[in-house]
Amino acid sequence: MRAVDLIRRKRDDGELAPDEIRFLVAGVTSGAVPEYQWAALLMAIVWRGMNAAETEALVDAMLHSGTVIDLSDLPGPKVDKHSTGGVADTTSLILAPVVAACGATVPMVSGRGLGHTGGTLDKLESIPGFRVDLDLDAYRRVARECGLVLAGQTAEIAPADRVLYALRDATATVESIPLITASILSKKLAEGIDSLVLDVKCGDGAFMTRPEDARALATSLVTIGRGLGTPVRALLTSMDEPLGPAVGNALEVREAIACLRGTGDASLAELSLELAAEMLLVSGAADDIESARARCRRAIADGSALERFRRVVIAQGGDGRICDTPDTVLPRAARVELVRAGRTGFVAGRRAWPIGQASMLLGAGRSTVDSRIDPAAGIVLRRRVGDPVRDGDVLAELHVNTEHAHALAAATELLVTAFRIEAEPVPRPPLVLGRL
Amino acid sequence: MRAVDLIRRKRDDGELAPDEIRFLVAGVTSGAVPEYQWAALLMAIVWRGMNAAETEALVDAMLHSGTVIDLSDLPGPKVDKHSTGGVADTTSLILAPVVAACGATVPMVSGRGLGHTGGTLDKLESIPGFRVDLDLDAYRRVARECGLVLAGQTAEIAPADRVLYALRDATATVESIPLITASILSKKLAEGIDSLVLDVKCGDGAFMTRPEDARALATSLVTIGRGLGTPVRALLTSMDEPLGPAVGNALEVREAIACLRGTGDASLAELSLELAAEMLLVSGAADDIESARARCRRAIADGSALERFRRVVIAQGGDGRICDTPDTVLPRAARVELVRAGRTGFVAGRRAWPIGQASMLLGAGRSTVDSRIDPAAGIVLRRRVGDPVRDGDVLAELHVNTEHAHALAAATELLVTAFRIEAEPVPRPPLVLGRL
Repeated sequence: MRAVDLIRRKRDDGELAPDEIRFLVAGVTSGAVPEYQWAALLMAIVWRGMNAAETEALVDAMLHSGTVIDLSDLPGPKVDKHSTGGVADTTSLILAPVVAACGATVPMVSGRGLGHTGGTLDKLESIPGFRVDLDLDAYRRVARECGLVLAGQTAEIAPADRVLYALRDATATVESIPLITASILSKKLAEGIDSLVLDVKCGDGAFMTRPEDARALATSLVTIGRGLGTPVRALLTSMDEPLGPAVGNALEVREAIACLRGTGDASLAELSLELAAEMLLVSGAADDIESARARCRRAIADGSALERFRRVVIAQGGDGRICDTPDTVLPRAARVELVRAGRTGFVAGRRAWPIGQASMLLGAGRSTVDSRIDPAAGIVLRRRVGDPVRDGDVLAELHVNTEHAHALAAATELLVTAFRIEAEPVPRPPLVLGRL
Repeated sequence: MRAVDLIRRKRDDGELAPDEIRFLVAGVTSGAVPEYQWAALLMAIVWRGMNAAETEALVDAMLHSGTVIDLSDLPGPKVDKHSTGGVADTTSLILAPVVAACGATVPMVSGRGLGHTGGTLDKLESIPGFRVDLDLDAYRRVARECGLVLAGQTAEIAPADRVLYALRDATATVESIPLITASILSKKLAEGIDSLVLDVKCGDGAFMTRPEDARALATSLVTIGRGLGTPVRALLTSMDEPLGPAVGNALEVREAIACLRGTGDASLAELSLELAAEMLLVSGAADDIESARARCRRAIADGSALERFRRVVIAQGGDGRICDTPDTVLPRAARVELVRAGRTGFVAGRRAWPIGQASMLLGAGRSTVDSRIDPAAGIVLRRRVGDPVRDGDVLAELHVNTEHAHALAAATELLVTAFRIEAEPVPRPPLVLGRL
């Protein structure tokens, strides 16, 4: 079997067999198939696509390129949620303890932020002492003790994806539904889960800006995941405006704790609980969506979700007092500048992309994979679409330290252009656009 | 400027600007743009193509990635011919001395054979002592003294092409008209020529099997060459059957010398002189095709072409007696096996591809770039399409040494399937299918 012949077949719109895909994936991990051959193959896949059988084989080969964690010795269902990424998308920190409090285990392997999107690992690392680099033993132990674990991808998990992800980034071959499907599922199915909920974001601040593309990606993820024997459900959710009010790492942790206390932002709490309910449903921990929602709300109301969060923070080396007095534990920026409305009316638009960019400029995100994150930096949004606003009202707070103070003017400008204020009231847009 | 952005633009069917193409080509030579990025770009070019401006910029950048030889101090026109490759395509060895004898200089940089096609360098190296690895000084000296030089590509000529050619071979991105155009023209325009004739082969034994593809390639070569200020003419010629009677290195040299003596194969001589006449025409050494043809025929008849060949063989270290007694100078195979006709009728087909494959199996060609060539091995074809044949007549001789004798059965089988004999006479097909 020669890689060049397989590249040629895909180039000519042919189909690759499962053993051929295994050969190629094994080759990228071992180095037997050079990166330049994979780069050409990736572009041919962007061009020609992959059918369901090929995509399943690709997920399976990438999944088995490394360790597939087995948590079957833990009681009850093991379920996770994956989001395709957005701005102020803090749901993971809320839904994981909620689902754990409802009796399922949430073994969550997350990533870091890049560009205008945030990453769960960066948010967690804003908690003093919190460690995300767990070895396999620690991962199992935390999952067993807490009912959830919040870790980073280790070298053992889907090493083929690590190589291919970096290669796709450098070769403009990210935008391919089968390749995105394989990257997401190979990592998630290696975590030790037996079911999965996907939050496929759509809109200005999402990877997929058009609803039809987001739906196609969600369909692929659900179809391929189920084809591999894992129950998968997907929500299509709006990322035209940032989901929650906080953009930036410590700011989002603070907001997540507020939601776990029942005093947080309504939209962020609503979507977090909706995803948590879907997790109970897909994992078999609940029989219908209504009873699942009720259990999730109860886990907030009775404090059991917050207690789970406290437990995992402590188990992963963090300061548990964060659950009681987050403002004294979390880092805070030296300056807070205010962005105000220039007219009276109603917020008709609050674009996620420029807000994510502004947050990155303030130090909360990465412009390149090597950028250093300022955990305290970011933005707190004080108005959302549909809200009335008066001339001079505060639209947003910009939290910044000296190191990034030079970016304040640009960030302010981005915020001003992100908000659109009109005279007539605008209905609040739905959070959930569809379900698969 | 970032390579990934340029790859993305091409992927999305956008156009690359000349400075962007220069950046990419400079990067592949220096290593600043890694091979994997070029591999993805190559596949995107196979997919999306390149317009004339992009292709011109690509040729120009590849041409200037190394030394562009300047022979303007030599008197008269400098002209070369390039063939896209075929079986028993021995024209270079004939037309170069003919054109030199007619007063133009032919600075010819050739390649080696691969797969079923032969290479001029391998043929020349079957002449004892003949050296093709000339440095720039020797190249100039031989061109000046002989009116022709027959050399291999040096490291200084179009180094970007060398990297990209190997990369295309490994990534199934050979089949792209702009990429083929850039590879051919960047090497040829670096030789020191001021005009060029292209022999674009079409048919069973050619790179382009379909006439429309061959015409598209010829059109691209002529258009881009002229766009860069070099007069270019192209012939579309048939490669359904091998051109000459000899397939294999020493065998082809012997046949070329026969043609230079005026006693060689009629078809091979005819096409060689037609290409030579086109070279005189495109270079301005002749005013019309009829007078050009007459001069070429005269160079054969008066022995001046053969004399030029003798001169270049000696200048490049070879044994000049080859022009008088080739059979005593050239290596000969230990065994000659005959392939005979199994029925009486007329040769209706003589497929070039299996004949080239058979020759390769006998040791005359390379299955991989590292294979060693047997200069004496090969095939002599004794019947061509249109010839009458009787049951038991010899169709071909297989020349083989002990080392490759194990391949005789397979080679014989390929020869038998290559010949198609029918009851009714078949007209001899035209050699030249079109001109641009």
